[in-house]
Amino acid sequence: MARPLGSVVAALGGTLMGPAELVIRRLAPLATACEDELAFIAQARYASQLQTTQAGALIVPPALQEAAAQRGACIVTDDPYLYFARLTQWWTREHDPAEPAAIDALASLHPTAELADGVSIGPFAVIGARARIGRGARIGAHAVVGADARIGADTRLHARVSVGERCVVGERGILHPGVVIGADGFGFAPHQGQWIKIEQLGAVRIGDDVEIGANTCIDRGALDDTVIEDGVKLDNLIQIGHNVHVGAHTAMAGCVGVAGSATIGAHCTIGGGAVVLGHLTLADGVHVSAASVVTRSIAKPGHYTGMFPIDDNASWEKNAASLKQLNRLRERLKAAEQAIALVQKNTSPP
Amino acid sequence: MARPLGSVVAALGGTLMGPAELVIRRLAPLATACEDELAFIAQARYASQLQTTQAGALIVPPALQEAAAQRGACIVTDDPYLYFARLTQWWTREHDPAEPAAIDALASLHPTAELADGVSIGPFAVIGARARIGRGARIGAHAVVGADARIGADTRLHARVSVGERCVVGERGILHPGVVIGADGFGFAPHQGQWIKIEQLGAVRIGDDVEIGANTCIDRGALDDTVIEDGVKLDNLIQIGHNVHVGAHTAMAGCVGVAGSATIGAHCTIGGGAVVLGHLTLADGVHVSAASVVTRSIAKPGHYTGMFPIDDNASWEKNAASLKQLNRLRERLKAAEQAIALVQKNTSPP
Amino acid sequence: MARPLGSVVAALGGTLMGPAELVIRRLAPLATACEDELAFIAQARYASQLQTTQAGALIVPPALQEAAAQRGACIVTDDPYLYFARLTQWWTREHDPAEPAAIDALASLHPTAELADGVSIGPFAVIGARARIGRGARIGAHAVVGADARIGADTRLHARVSVGERCVVGERGILHPGVVIGADGFGFAPHQGQWIKIEQLGAVRIGDDVEIGANTCIDRGALDDTVIEDGVKLDNLIQIGHNVHVGAHTAMAGCVGVAGSATIGAHCTIGGGAVVLGHLTLADGVHVSAASVVTRSIAKPGHYTGMFPIDDNASWEKNAASLKQLNRLRERLKAAEQAIALVQKNTSPP
Repeated sequence: MARPLGSVVAALGGTLMGPAELVIRRLAPLATACEDELAFIAQARYASQLQTTQAGALIVPPALQEAAAQRGACIVTDDPYLYFARLTQWWTREHDPAEPAAIDALASLHPTAELADGVSIGPFAVIGARARIGRGARIGAHAVVGADARIGADTRLHARVSVGERCVVGERGILHPGVVIGADGFGFAPHQGQWIKIEQLGAVRIGDDVEIGANTCIDRGALDDTVIEDGVKLDNLIQIGHNVHVGAHTAMAGCVGVAGSATIGAHCTIGGGAVVLGHLTLADGVHVSAASVVTRSIAKPGHYTGMFPIDDNASWEKNAASLKQLNRLRERLKAAEQAIALVQKNTSPP
Repeated sequence: MARPLGSVVAALGGTLMGPAELVIRRLAPLATACEDELAFIAQARYASQLQTTQAGALIVPPALQEAAAQRGACIVTDDPYLYFARLTQWWTREHDPAEPAAIDALASLHPTAELADGVSIGPFAVIGARARIGRGARIGAHAVVGADARIGADTRLHARVSVGERCVVGERGILHPGVVIGADGFGFAPHQGQWIKIEQLGAVRIGDDVEIGANTCIDRGALDDTVIEDGVKLDNLIQIGHNVHVGAHTAMAGCVGVAGSATIGAHCTIGGGAVVLGHLTLADGVHVSAASVVTRSIAKPGHYTGMFPIDDNASWEKNAASLKQLNRLRERLKAAEQAIALVQKNTSPP
Repeated sequence: MARPLGSVVAALGGTLMGPAELVIRRLAPLATACEDELAFIAQARYASQLQTTQAGALIVPPALQEAAAQRGACIVTDDPYLYFARLTQWWTREHDPAEPAAIDALASLHPTAELADGVSIGPFAVIGARARIGRGARIGAHAVVGADARIGADTRLHARVSVGERCVVGERGILHPGVVIGADGFGFAPHQGQWIKIEQLGAVRIGDDVEIGANTCIDRGALDDTVIEDGVKLDNLIQIGHNVHVGAHTAMAGCVGVAGSATIGAHCTIGGGAVVLGHLTLADGVHVSAASVVTRSIAKPGHYTGMFPIDDNASWEKNAASLKQLNRLRERLKAAEQAIALVQKNTSPP
């Protein structure tokens, strides 16, 4: 696991300052990097870290070129963070090349399933009737692809992913272990104190370049489909209800819950543990802080928050108790203001 | 996938206004329904949508019979939403009939497991020693039924459901992919800074007609059993702790957490992301809003809420900062009121 | 399933008061225990329950020895709760002895995997290249151990656990169904409105005596490893982001989310549904209440809380509306105080 620094620049560009033959054995965080490791400084305002890092080579922005070159080898590039992302991809391809495509003998393939060229199927995977798996897709151990489902080219289902019947996953997707696509949405009609199931007749349609974290669930639509557009990134343990529509390139952190029929715009970010209630619409470019509850539609791009500030427990107890009387406090304040006004009037010089 | 409108009424009742031979190709939402699609209007107050929908036929309440019949075919019924729920069930049976029962050759069945007539077992499912699977039950791919567990008649375990040893699932249940029934409850005794495991000796007992969403977990009891009564509906990614008791026909939305030994009444609803702390009791008919934290027992039916209202981030920051001084504000207000009273006394006419 | 009371004391110690031959058929909660059942009273302040329990025998602290012995058989020990924990372990070993080690014929073992003595592998488990399974470890049905991963001696992976490539689990661990260790952390560089994946090159290192609840996820580090130290206990449906460090003997209840690069000290407890934001540091001995959001580092041990108090919905609506004007209320109060001061000055006796 080692590459000369020059091979990095040959593959990814950037301006090399220093010896091309310097051997890099690992990509490392700036703070702990050693002399045979490559780290990055994203922005010029972190320039002070140039003095303390032990990294053998650095990826830096143009503003730090001079200072970085004085301390040792560096690669200069406009956007070091982006460069670093691409470097991790190149590093992975170099050191962990994809295994040759193979269909495990212990997989269960329906005779009517269609597998394109270069498909890999892991042990104990189950591919249902008429399912279609695109060229180069990799289906992990214990993954289940339901009847009439489609998996796009070069998409990877890790172990234990379920894609329900008729659901569609686009190209170049990554679905992590335990993901459930296309379980029934939560729909019931109340009747005499009981719940009558509404069969969920829609499916889930997922665009290209979508990544979905471990144990995240996306329910199928009631009548129409649940839709996840291109480039969406979902972290682990997220719940997406039926008929939700998530716009392109929106990202959600772990443990988010989106209730049924919510429409979330493109280029949004939703912080970890946030909840979006059902039937709401969020515009493009809405950013919701962690653990906030979206209770109304948001038409304007921006940053929105609603969470109780944490405090030492004793202070919290006092403030929380007062909070339950806050409306009463407001009324008392109004009464005090009126009393003051009256006193002022009575005591003002004639 | 098409049925004449008359066959719907023949199967489900209601009063048909219009041609029985009208062909319906899909059930559709009112807003997007086309001329060969069937939609519903739940209540008379949505009458205005009669004018805009393109649906070929409508299910409407009696109050809309006249107006609906003027625009085209309709089925009149007292509760259109309930009718629609039953319609989805009928539609599913018509178009997606259950496959003939079969035991997949790649399943792992313990020789002492008891399978009733008409049981289906999917590929790579594992049925443990002395487990009993009721008549007509369907066990999905990769499902695991532990030793001495029981699955009721006509219950369906989707792919990758685990039912732990000695746990019981009633009849006509639906467990979605990734459900874990009967993992150990979270119980430890503290000892010299470490946690000593309390083996969880109880099991989980689930009643009839229970539906459990994808990746939801219900822990086994510590000594007694965790109990889910008949007709309970749980959405995805819910955590039910050990020794919890959930009353009949209670419904919980996604991402709810119920801590150990909580007792939740019948006919309750718990909104998405809500948390119920341990050892509490909620009466029948308690409705908890999404993302609210139940920190005390609730003896009275009703609607309960506790969530920080979302706001633009700048406003939230100001209000959250003030919130941390709320109790101090209350004290200041009290002092102001006293000062006002004193001034009033001093300035009142003698 | 029955043991004489004397055999309990012979195995676990304590002072027996009463007949050693008394047959115990079950460990039971105090409130519902019957005459052939054994229950415990943790502390002297629960002494009143001595009068009402029907338990055949009790485990009690020294302060209750006399009162307990008067009503019937008892075992006296300094820490009844700890004694009870060990009793559940002994009871389980007695009644549910581990089955003899066996490698299921339907498991998929890579030829280069190394299995120590006494390893059990369940049906349809998958053990990857060069993976090492320690002595006495039990790998459940459908578990997946990735290439180069290591599972410590006597650790148990329940059904459907995934341990990703290169990840390490220590000795005597318990991982419940659906656990995902080593899925990719959530890391992307923004570029022209899209997200460029940062390959996650680290792994997960889990210490000894760690228990991880059903469907909990621990992501692999971006460059360095995500670390869970010895004795940590995680409940169900928890999300641990990449590069998180959890100190020894810390416990987290269900549905907690810990964002990337957070460092949580030793001997902490995190309540159910709490969220810890990324890149924060929590000292040893920090206790976070359920559903609280940790938005800043906490340097001092103690108890911290931040959650909106639940109320009847009508009261909540009023208080929540006032909360959105809280900062304005504070300003109004300040103005009122100033007005009062002025009036006081004007009306004070000369």
